[in-house]
Amino acid sequence: MSDQAVPPVSPRVTTGPLPGSRKIHVEGSRSDLRVAMREIDLAPSAAEPPVRLYDCSGPYTDPAVSVDITRGLQPLRAAWIAERGDVETYPGRPHRPEDDGLKPGESIGVPVFDRGGRLPLRAKPGCRPTQLAYARAGIVTPEMEYVAIRENLRRADAIDSGPRDGETFGAELPEIITPEFVRSEIARGRAILPANLNHPEAEPMIIGRNFLTKINANIGNSAVASSVEEEVEKMVWAIRWGADTVMDLSTGRHIHATREWIIRNSPVPIGTVPIYQALEKVDGKAEDLTWEIFRDTLIEQAEQGVDYVTVHAGLRLAHIPLTAKRVTGIVSRGGSIMAKWCLAHHRENFLYTHFDELCELLTAYDVGISLGDGLRPGSIADGNDAAQFAELETLGELTHRAWALDAQVMIEGPGHVPMHKIKVNVEKQLALCGEAPFYTLGPLVTDIAPGYDHITSAIGAAMIGWFGTAMLCYVTPKEHLGLPDRQDVREGVVTYKLAAHAADLAKGHPAARLRDDALSRARFEFRWKDQFHLSLDPEKAQDFHDQHLPADGAKLAHFCSMCGPKFCSMKISQEVRDAANAEAEAGMNSMSEKFLAEGAEIYKTDKPAAE
Amino acid sequence: MSDQAVPPVSPRVTTGPLPGSRKIHVEGSRSDLRVAMREIDLAPSAAEPPVRLYDCSGPYTDPAVSVDITRGLQPLRAAWIAERGDVETYPGRPHRPEDDGLKPGESIGVPVFDRGGRLPLRAKPGCRPTQLAYARAGIVTPEMEYVAIRENLRRADAIDSGPRDGETFGAELPEIITPEFVRSEIARGRAILPANLNHPEAEPMIIGRNFLTKINANIGNSAVASSVEEEVEKMVWAIRWGADTVMDLSTGRHIHATREWIIRNSPVPIGTVPIYQALEKVDGKAEDLTWEIFRDTLIEQAEQGVDYVTVHAGLRLAHIPLTAKRVTGIVSRGGSIMAKWCLAHHRENFLYTHFDELCELLTAYDVGISLGDGLRPGSIADGNDAAQFAELETLGELTHRAWALDAQVMIEGPGHVPMHKIKVNVEKQLALCGEAPFYTLGPLVTDIAPGYDHITSAIGAAMIGWFGTAMLCYVTPKEHLGLPDRQDVREGVVTYKLAAHAADLAKGHPAARLRDDALSRARFEFRWKDQFHLSLDPEKAQDFHDQHLPADGAKLAHFCSMCGPKFCSMKISQEVRDAANAEAEAGMNSMSEKFLAEGAEIYKTDKPAAE
Repeated sequence: MSDQAVPPVSPRVTTGPLPGSRKIHVEGSRSDLRVAMREIDLAPSAAEPPVRLYDCSGPYTDPAVSVDITRGLQPLRAAWIAERGDVETYPGRPHRPEDDGLKPGESIGVPVFDRGGRLPLRAKPGCRPTQLAYARAGIVTPEMEYVAIRENLRRADAIDSGPRDGETFGAELPEIITPEFVRSEIARGRAILPANLNHPEAEPMIIGRNFLTKINANIGNSAVASSVEEEVEKMVWAIRWGADTVMDLSTGRHIHATREWIIRNSPVPIGTVPIYQALEKVDGKAEDLTWEIFRDTLIEQAEQGVDYVTVHAGLRLAHIPLTAKRVTGIVSRGGSIMAKWCLAHHRENFLYTHFDELCELLTAYDVGISLGDGLRPGSIADGNDAAQFAELETLGELTHRAWALDAQVMIEGPGHVPMHKIKVNVEKQLALCGEAPFYTLGPLVTDIAPGYDHITSAIGAAMIGWFGTAMLCYVTPKEHLGLPDRQDVREGVVTYKLAAHAADLAKGHPAARLRDDALSRARFEFRWKDQFHLSLDPEKAQDFHDQHLPADGAKLAHFCSMCGPKFCSMKISQEVRDAANAEAEAGMNSMSEKFLAEGAEIYKTDKPAAE
Repeated sequence: MSDQAVPPVSPRVTTGPLPGSRKIHVEGSRSDLRVAMREIDLAPSAAEPPVRLYDCSGPYTDPAVSVDITRGLQPLRAAWIAERGDVETYPGRPHRPEDDGLKPGESIGVPVFDRGGRLPLRAKPGCRPTQLAYARAGIVTPEMEYVAIRENLRRADAIDSGPRDGETFGAELPEIITPEFVRSEIARGRAILPANLNHPEAEPMIIGRNFLTKINANIGNSAVASSVEEEVEKMVWAIRWGADTVMDLSTGRHIHATREWIIRNSPVPIGTVPIYQALEKVDGKAEDLTWEIFRDTLIEQAEQGVDYVTVHAGLRLAHIPLTAKRVTGIVSRGGSIMAKWCLAHHRENFLYTHFDELCELLTAYDVGISLGDGLRPGSIADGNDAAQFAELETLGELTHRAWALDAQVMIEGPGHVPMHKIKVNVEKQLALCGEAPFYTLGPLVTDIAPGYDHITSAIGAAMIGWFGTAMLCYVTPKEHLGLPDRQDVREGVVTYKLAAHAADLAKGHPAARLRDDALSRARFEFRWKDQFHLSLDPEKAQDFHDQHLPADGAKLAHFCSMCGPKFCSMKISQEVRDAANAEAEAGMNSMSEKFLAEGAEIYKTDKPAAE
């Protein structure tokens, strides 16, 4: 495991490249626009160029960067934000003990991140400094250019590789992502670029179905377990394995202080569900929540730099009775909180009634809105029911209201849905929400596999990603059972990376297959090290291999312990290929030629049959 | 882990029920026809009947049975086979040292199972004692009745639960499985009942797309690792977690002796790939293989009781050049061996040229034929290529030839296939092979996840199962990297059980959802023990839960460590439901009623909105 080989820092987080990977930077149109990627050099025998991969891991995997989490990451976007001239610093909302779940006078029990006097930014009066507003104004921001370079990778190399192979279900995947394409997708609301003014440390990324499918990892303490330092490391750990965004779902004490540590050290957008913190401020009594408390919490988090927030504004009072006969009721935490509030007061959800005000507030910081699906189904029995789709209709209405106010918005989706009911979820979402990005949890395709729900949900995730979901929220093996630990997070992230990649492949993403093909060539040629390095989890791949064949020499062997030397099909297949080639050269493949000449329809192929 | 709690036997295998499960037997039309199932009693607060589950685990989970693997299992089918009057015992083929990979005079290094003088059975001259022949003759065998009872479970209870919910893609799933339906499906070739005369210990099961989706687990040593005793325990372990059949893919020394131990102790059908053993007999030189050696190996294995054999008879000489430009060539072990033979001799595959003789031989024992896909794709790049589909066309031809000789037959399928190319595999297979059962490996939907290929392949497996595959061959986390160990087998089996179940749900199998619903109700009502017991892996579910909350009291708690007590949506949701019910009783739900009365189309539901 990599973390054993890494020198400790204080507080300690995991650093160092993944095995076989190098950090590279591709410069854009200005010298302060340097897009991080990773590259894998292959064995000389491959005679192939390095494989370039999308990289979420930030400076933690860059040996050239000295990581000190007490100082935080470099604010790479600070100049871009400042030079647009539409934002200003201000003293910010005063910090209150209850922000950290403390009683008045009680002192905080964790270290506080030292911002060094940096003040929060917000829009100047009359300005809306959102990427959506810029895009609509025809402005290509440095963030958009960054995203275009980041998404392209070696896409130019893929164009020659043959006709497009995939089923897009209406997605429009261009050959090359230009900054102008990024702008137009954001302007149409089909993609969001979550980038809070107060999180200049983040590397820009985009969420939309015409880009690479993204994944989110949830971290967070709970009342029962966990600590501040563990949470920062969880973020670093999650992005190491490929999380594109991280949601901090912490509850309980020290929630503000913990979040500050995470954001200051995060190269990926951070999302939250502010109702969790708001509920803490009213001692867990949902009925005591108010719009004012919620609004204050939004400002608190916006000033810290949260990039997107889940708001359960689509769960309306009238929807709640539709859940009465459900097998599993309301399974969204935020949804159940808001439902309880609505019923207690017999009033419409205050997030719905104050939605325009909420948008105005968030656009001042460019905090993205993730419209929560408080009524997502929690069991196969409840999948695609009236409650779920009633809320989705409201989410469609809110999407258009957010757009009218230049707010970036995406839509959250289920949940538990059997395979045959997945596709209609995407179709309805695209239609009702004007193609705003869909951000789904799973869905889980059966209820009977606790302990394996990362897998149960990866099946649904791969399918819904293929159909058009822009970002997949991971599920760990601990889902339904307990708080995920370090290995659960890794297992969940890698599982969702493979699901997202499977979706990109099936959509016919122009460059997705480059990595599969490179790995498969390495496999066929027994370049074991290349195979490990190209894997989503190089360490686990090598560890599994080495359990039976630990010697260095085995990395050159033309077999593994699965089949042993005599029964390795790849080895025999290479011998077959050599023989077939020799035969072709000798002009002896008359039977094959005759067979082909007879014109069996199945043999129509672009490739010469033998050479 | 259960194996820690189990008293040792010698040689030691895992026994004892899964947590919360009881073994039951449902008697059929005769007293010696007792179908094993397992039942789970729920907490009294559930006020629900026990949940009845399909059970592959045999007597090992029955506390009433004293297991002694040196004696083997009871031959429950012996009387059924004998009373049909169409078979006879004979001395059998003499055992030879090379059957166990020994040089002449070399003594065997493992214990030999003592058959106690039992002789092999085969057809009397002129008879074809196959389940297909019986079915065509209109005979409902006890095996067929057993299968009907086994498949039904509590299906009768499900019929009242509402309209059929699923997309069958042409599968015909009756409300109730009758013995006559089993017969008719076998007679049409749409299902097989693998049941070698010489494996009377096996509990009858059926493979066909109009029945529950089945899974196979591969076990086997390899030249690099493993031992005889481990292989028997692997079989017991695989069926404990739900393997419907087990393929013994052993190679190397003691292959015959090991197989005898496995078969004598296996309550599930055992499959093999005889070419592996045949290759051992020619010291690994594919070019030295002959039909006579292969035929002798078939007889050897048929006499032992192998229930189905994979034969790579569809890989023809003329197909081989179609693989020349593949990224990963030929990845089937058997396929690569036969391709090497074909090229070495420049002759047609002897399994193809001797196929009728092969069928005649196997029908004398009712050994099922699994037509191997020697040219299955081993990478995304090679998915659905000309080589693969050329072979599939030949497999269609061979299916009809097997049927003409009353041989039971199923068809093996890919491999590595991206999601958008999966469905056409089933469509072509059904069309070319006359709806003979499809038996697929995965398919893996991306190549980049070594170490996680049980997941990569479960995505494809769930989908292809939904589309019509009858049995899914599992893939373990060690795929491509090494020999699976005990935990890999468990992980692979459970992963495939969930994929198969997801397929049954999506097809709208009449009773599949009973278990999901029971588990989800348990989850919603915080019946933690019930939730664990209803899980595919009750031990892992409880273990995960207990990592943070080990106390017995936590099994009654209305939360877990994932969200903690204040943020448990299920807990809040129950409070919401109570409030909603109270409100409804008080007649105060006027707003909801008004909303509904406005007739928003999405609210059309069979259920009263609130009560």
